[in-house]
Amino acid sequence: MADLSTLSALNAAVLSDTLDSLGLMRQAMKPFMRPLDDALQLVGRARTGLYMPVYAQPAAGENPYEVEIALVDDLQPGDVVVLACDGPSERIAPWGELLSTACVARGAAGCVTDGLVRDVRQIREMRFPVFCGGIGPLDTKGRARMVERDVPVQCGGVAVHPGELVFGDVDGVVVIPREAEAEVVQRALEKVAGENQSRDALRRGEKLGDVFRRLGIL
Amino acid sequence: MADLSTLSALNAAVLSDTLDSLGLMRQAMKPFMRPLDDALQLVGRARTGLYMPVYAQPAAGENPYEVEIALVDDLQPGDVVVLACDGPSERIAPWGELLSTACVARGAAGCVTDGLVRDVRQIREMRFPVFCGGIGPLDTKGRARMVERDVPVQCGGVAVHPGELVFGDVDGVVVIPREAEAEVVQRALEKVAGENQSRDALRRGEKLGDVFRRLGIL
Amino acid sequence: MADLSTLSALNAAVLSDTLDSLGLMRQAMKPFMRPLDDALQLVGRARTGLYMPVYAQPAAGENPYEVEIALVDDLQPGDVVVLACDGPSERIAPWGELLSTACVARGAAGCVTDGLVRDVRQIREMRFPVFCGGIGPLDTKGRARMVERDVPVQCGGVAVHPGELVFGDVDGVVVIPREAEAEVVQRALEKVAGENQSRDALRRGEKLGDVFRRLGIL
Amino acid sequence: MADLSTLSALNAAVLSDTLDSLGLMRQAMKPFMRPLDDALQLVGRARTGLYMPVYAQPAAGENPYEVEIALVDDLQPGDVVVLACDGPSERIAPWGELLSTACVARGAAGCVTDGLVRDVRQIREMRFPVFCGGIGPLDTKGRARMVERDVPVQCGGVAVHPGELVFGDVDGVVVIPREAEAEVVQRALEKVAGENQSRDALRRGEKLGDVFRRLGIL
Amino acid sequence: MADLSTLSALNAAVLSDTLDSLGLMRQAMKPFMRPLDDALQLVGRARTGLYMPVYAQPAAGENPYEVEIALVDDLQPGDVVVLACDGPSERIAPWGELLSTACVARGAAGCVTDGLVRDVRQIREMRFPVFCGGIGPLDTKGRARMVERDVPVQCGGVAVHPGELVFGDVDGVVVIPREAEAEVVQRALEKVAGENQSRDALRRGEKLGDVFRRLGIL
Amino acid sequence: MADLSTLSALNAAVLSDTLDSLGLMRQAMKPFMRPLDDALQLVGRARTGLYMPVYAQPAAGENPYEVEIALVDDLQPGDVVVLACDGPSERIAPWGELLSTACVARGAAGCVTDGLVRDVRQIREMRFPVFCGGIGPLDTKGRARMVERDVPVQCGGVAVHPGELVFGDVDGVVVIPREAEAEVVQRALEKVAGENQSRDALRRGEKLGDVFRRLGIL
Repeated sequence: MADLSTLSALNAAVLSDTLDSLGLMRQAMKPFMRPLDDALQLVGRARTGLYMPVYAQPAAGENPYEVEIALVDDLQPGDVVVLACDGPSERIAPWGELLSTACVARGAAGCVTDGLVRDVRQIREMRFPVFCGGIGPLDTKGRARMVERDVPVQCGGVAVHPGELVFGDVDGVVVIPREAEAEVVQRALEKVAGENQSRDALRRGEKLGDVFRRLGIL
Repeated sequence: MADLSTLSALNAAVLSDTLDSLGLMRQAMKPFMRPLDDALQLVGRARTGLYMPVYAQPAAGENPYEVEIALVDDLQPGDVVVLACDGPSERIAPWGELLSTACVARGAAGCVTDGLVRDVRQIREMRFPVFCGGIGPLDTKGRARMVERDVPVQCGGVAVHPGELVFGDVDGVVVIPREAEAEVVQRALEKVAGENQSRDALRRGEKLGDVFRRLGIL
Repeated sequence: MADLSTLSALNAAVLSDTLDSLGLMRQAMKPFMRPLDDALQLVGRARTGLYMPVYAQPAAGENPYEVEIALVDDLQPGDVVVLACDGPSERIAPWGELLSTACVARGAAGCVTDGLVRDVRQIREMRFPVFCGGIGPLDTKGRARMVERDVPVQCGGVAVHPGELVFGDVDGVVVIPREAEAEVVQRALEKVAGENQSRDALRRGEKLGDVFRRLGIL
Repeated sequence: MADLSTLSALNAAVLSDTLDSLGLMRQAMKPFMRPLDDALQLVGRARTGLYMPVYAQPAAGENPYEVEIALVDDLQPGDVVVLACDGPSERIAPWGELLSTACVARGAAGCVTDGLVRDVRQIREMRFPVFCGGIGPLDTKGRARMVERDVPVQCGGVAVHPGELVFGDVDGVVVIPREAEAEVVQRALEKVAGENQSRDALRRGEKLGDVFRRLGIL
Repeated sequence: MADLSTLSALNAAVLSDTLDSLGLMRQAMKPFMRPLDDALQLVGRARTGLYMPVYAQPAAGENPYEVEIALVDDLQPGDVVVLACDGPSERIAPWGELLSTACVARGAAGCVTDGLVRDVRQIREMRFPVFCGGIGPLDTKGRARMVERDVPVQCGGVAVHPGELVFGDVDGVVVIPREAEAEVVQRALEKVAGENQSRDALRRGEKLGDVFRRLGIL
Repeated sequence: MADLSTLSALNAAVLSDTLDSLGLMRQAMKPFMRPLDDALQLVGRARTGLYMPVYAQPAAGENPYEVEIALVDDLQPGDVVVLACDGPSERIAPWGELLSTACVARGAAGCVTDGLVRDVRQIREMRFPVFCGGIGPLDTKGRARMVERDVPVQCGGVAVHPGELVFGDVDGVVVIPREAEAEVVQRALEKVAGENQSRDALRRGEKLGDVFRRLGIL
């Protein structure tokens, strides 16, 4: 299992290329998934929540946030909350300041949702990494409900299993399947080194054709 | 009728929750409506304009901006221009620097349109709050025309009546129906206070479940 | 043929209005085309590349980047790379840091693509102007291939011919057909002057109706 | 409560106009909702089912169709199954031949779903009225699950409450809220009579303006 | 000016190819425009109506159908009503049985709209050719209003000027600009003859390559 | 390798369920893919063609249909032409009467394309099975070009490899990967038998719950 601290040297593009090279070509979330803060990197393991649409207020005495609360209260350091809303959803904002605050208190690494996010100003001030399908003020109550947690989901168009490595930066979010994790991380670290050589050669004005022929990296 | 100055302590998320609590669940504009400047808050009363598509240049001597000019020249301090383009429209940018300049001169509070906006750099420099369906350079002349003003419209997916309170911040735009205005504002101010307590408890590391049980706010 | 240096005084909105005034109403790219950096202006002549989707890895020994490399290695100072992906495409990011680096080395003016772009942080640091259909990490290899270059294309919804003037700023991207170039540039420079007068009058609080009647500019 | 047998003289357009005249303007499902058979009329009371997306196979021993089976086995004569899939959904076909067969055996009046339908040939042969968001072969197992029944839902863009009158024909599907039911049905029957007069006058070649002035119906 | 009766030997595909051959490549309406009856051919001259969205009921005493009525009452034999709704519109059905009846009485040739159509069963029974953006029961009253007639419009994605030839069949709708009309019709009639030869050769089992080499038609 | 004649007893829904049961859950084309004739069944092996968009007329002397002609002239009895247009494409109709005629002469089984089809009336008269992304008159010349054939493609959202079994009926199109072909066909034939039992029991009025418990088929 990869040591998460080594991953901070990586980026989403290199990880995506490495996954491609192993034939894993469906691991990058769709481009509607954007970070609230372009400068933040997200690395961690998926803790999933699955939402269903609802069209009525909860019954008296019913807690519509029950599964959501259980998920957040069970987070471990390095966990990434992955909220699957069948998105891009324009109807609900399942994430906001208070849940982010609870995450920070537990050492969670960030949140990824293909629903909307609210309290954007406060979340940015916390510098808590959140990647989302959009921004909007609509609470989930009476509109949707998390009904399962820690199950396989699809988020931003990518299958995400509990415990899988999730990596996000300004270029997007990639998910690394468990069985390929060790190899992906190792290859990606090597590719980063190679790209540095290409970049230096191109800065010196070498022809792209020559650089690609020599280093095989573009 | 609410005193607009008290509203600056509010935010779109709290107002949306409060409207929800009164059964008014269609008052938040869709997430494609974004501010030009994430840091600016918009509060004011709607002055509406309604556009129709046209596919020909105006006749000689005809002023295609006539209703638009009349609307802007009639603005009062605190008014919010709400331009309904049946958006998201990718065909027209009914708002730009010159109209923003005229608004500032009259003390208008901002502009909301589900069409596009142009002259974005200059509008940002003015720090005039504009929320829009996108950015683009296309003038309305020969593409659309404002045909009515100060009538009920739909903008960003929400019904807006002249005089209704419009509130926008980085989380989005909400519209507060006149008949619910006083109650919404009062309840929202109370909810802000409650959220502060929740936030403090969560920062101290309290379980979300315990905080929600005690304070009932998430 | 217009001297590119005079164009830096212009902006996309004025160019769009000028093109409109000549009956050229399809020259502004759609609003999904956004700059990576709102502060940068793009001016230059189009060097086009045309992509096709592919659904298999290249054959052994085949260089899938061949046409792309040839295009970039042939760039001249002031050229703008225009990559046509039948976009908005969410499947491929044909542009990134290494190609940007090669462009800067050759004095190219920028890149416009209706596909995605990656390595966004590094491209922003270079202050190289890029306008794109979105951001994402997915390489083209095994997903798409540039098959022709320096041919007529459509990008962001606008026809672009090799050598045509491309202008981009925060308001969007406009393309100026060769045969209208001289007239568009001259008229646009005149319109900029007129707008300054309107702006000053509006700042002084003049009625929009009066200003429009006197200056005819909105 | 309206006698369903009188409704067969009505049509969706007249019902929609009548609902409009009472200020109920959101009662017609969106036009992607089409009948499998243009010749069939659907009249009955809603029995709702609400689906959630799932991304994993059911656990061993778990019956993923449990709520669905319970709903169908509980149908009464005249009931209309309304399956809410947050549609238009292209992922699942919750309805097919076997469920239609069970419905016919219980005297149910038809099915409306904003998901897909399969076994279309057989359902058409049965002459069982089905209105759907599309046609496709994908079973729900491993893709979605009905989690609640006989609750308020949204289907085809319209709120549907259990027991509400649902009417469908080639022009579309309308839903009649319980509290307005008696008045809507009575007014609609009257309007049908008026339309017959207009039609006869127009056939005789009377001017539309004259007919509308005299009868007030268009 | 073409004699309309000769056009019945043509079809939309041949007309589209002929328009292409003259460089007129934007004359076919988008594929969401479908006939109510696949067997009917539409040939005639455009009489246009332009709609705007409205979000309020008409004022007391106001006739929201005024321009619509004037257009229909002014129709001449061979006219085709072209209703531009900025479609595909899912909000309004500007066309139905009564207007079709009035058209038939005046000898009008058909209707094309990128809005919805209702009373589909009755219109089909009349065998009146209607091409539309969809089917739905929603009247325009309180949702949209025709504000201009006999002006240039865009319908189904194509510019349509009053008096232009409109041709529709199961393959779609094409619009023939006035200045090219004579040449398009003549060339299209010739192409139909050539296609007959190709078809016969292919039926005899000739290679497509040989047929195309000999006749140049595909 | 399955004997194609046994497949006529199958249907798309049973094949889709069988593929699901083997974990092959991405084999049904999206619901926008519809048959021109609901009554026709399509069974055969894929012969693929891959299109790219072009935005200029072919050079003088260039045959833009070259690859297309080669593909059709090489068809064998039982082949299904699969034309990948990155669809749903609204820009091109790569299929029509003449190509269908050539197919029939060679004994080809049908055509599947996520582009448009034209000459719909004539193709229906031939009773040649065609499944497509829509109907429209626009020829490919100057808009797109088939650049490769007999390569892996994606059509209607599904990966299709040359030689794979393609099955279509009114419920949609499914693609059966070669390695699973024998097992899928055998299991599907068994499932058809089981469904007959369920249907009979439900017709007799048995409870769905009882039938599902006994036969395990829904």
